[in-house]
Amino acid sequence: MKIIVVGATGTIGRAVVEELAPRHELVKVGNRSGDVTVDITSTASIAQMYETIGAFDALISTTGQGYFGDFASLTETEMAVGIQSKLMGQINLVLLGRQLIRDQGSFTLTSGILSQDPVPGGAALSMVNAGIDGFVVGAAIDLTRGIRINAVSPGVVLESMDLYGPYFRGHDPVPVARVARAFSKSVEGRLNGQILRVY
Amino acid sequence: MKIIVVGATGTIGRAVVEELAPRHELVKVGNRSGDVTVDITSTASIAQMYETIGAFDALISTTGQGYFGDFASLTETEMAVGIQSKLMGQINLVLLGRQLIRDQGSFTLTSGILSQDPVPGGAALSMVNAGIDGFVVGAAIDLTRGIRINAVSPGVVLESMDLYGPYFRGHDPVPVARVARAFSKSVEGRLNGQILRVY
Repeated sequence: MKIIVVGATGTIGRAVVEELAPRHELVKVGNRSGDVTVDITSTASIAQMYETIGAFDALISTTGQGYFGDFASLTETEMAVGIQSKLMGQINLVLLGRQLIRDQGSFTLTSGILSQDPVPGGAALSMVNAGIDGFVVGAAIDLTRGIRINAVSPGVVLESMDLYGPYFRGHDPVPVARVARAFSKSVEGRLNGQILRVY
Repeated sequence: MKIIVVGATGTIGRAVVEELAPRHELVKVGNRSGDVTVDITSTASIAQMYETIGAFDALISTTGQGYFGDFASLTETEMAVGIQSKLMGQINLVLLGRQLIRDQGSFTLTSGILSQDPVPGGAALSMVNAGIDGFVVGAAIDLTRGIRINAVSPGVVLESMDLYGPYFRGHDPVPVARVARAFSKSVEGRLNGQILRVY
């Protein structure tokens, strides 16, 4: 399969590349580096990415920003960061790519544990992650030509504990290779409309 | 208690008023009619509403629009309708009201069944409803002064089947009085961070 990996330069993206590269042709997409670059907050940039890449069989997204921080200072401005990037950025990858993807293709997005298991300061990301999962559930029954969509919802990643550990006290960190296998299951299996929780 | 009901003129809002009016002082808020009016897509309008009403013990929201229709023509423009209204409109009611609500107060928002049980044409609302639920889960642990937050997630309402029945084939319609009791449970009980599913 020809598989686009958006976020290929991140911690999860690199593990996904390692998992899938032996069996598939990967197009590694990053924000600033990669085979192709994209700014997922811009539909023009997403359209340009698809035009550059051409026909493909699967898109994996392991990217997207969101606000994490003091709840007391959370306003619509901070909420908008995650809405534009992790939520609508990933949804727009689907909305703009669904006409271009080959029959029986698949989209796999990344949400996260905060939708169900919150941490202090994480309300904006709890919303974003849940919204991604909800979109997947809704879109799965309306996609045509055998095209599928799933989300991988990882817990805090073991390899990122230096950075995120202080915010996820008591959480069981997940080895990134386990997260990568969930993307393999989504792309190489036949699941549809599922939230693959890795925690 | 002094309870603000935003959406008091709608089908669910009227049932909530009927359920709670015998025991509480209600401030009925609508888009165009009611004791006070508000446009929840405008933070200025929400701030004005709170200024007009003054101190309160609970806010119930049973309002918000979202796109429902042909998935093939779904773009970020249609997604934005629900993001601005049902999703961020309700979230902004919380973000702007949390400094003004009395100690031990509560916010209760409305999401809906499509987050888990999708129907054709409902992907945008599946996202919005799930996002509301996720925000509730995240915000619940960060609110202070004993303030609580829950969401009521209703199935298709029996009293609205003339309008929505064709889009919810096979769904078990829920009497609106049952939905109203979930709002009572949220406001008059002590639950926090819960999605009260009524279906």
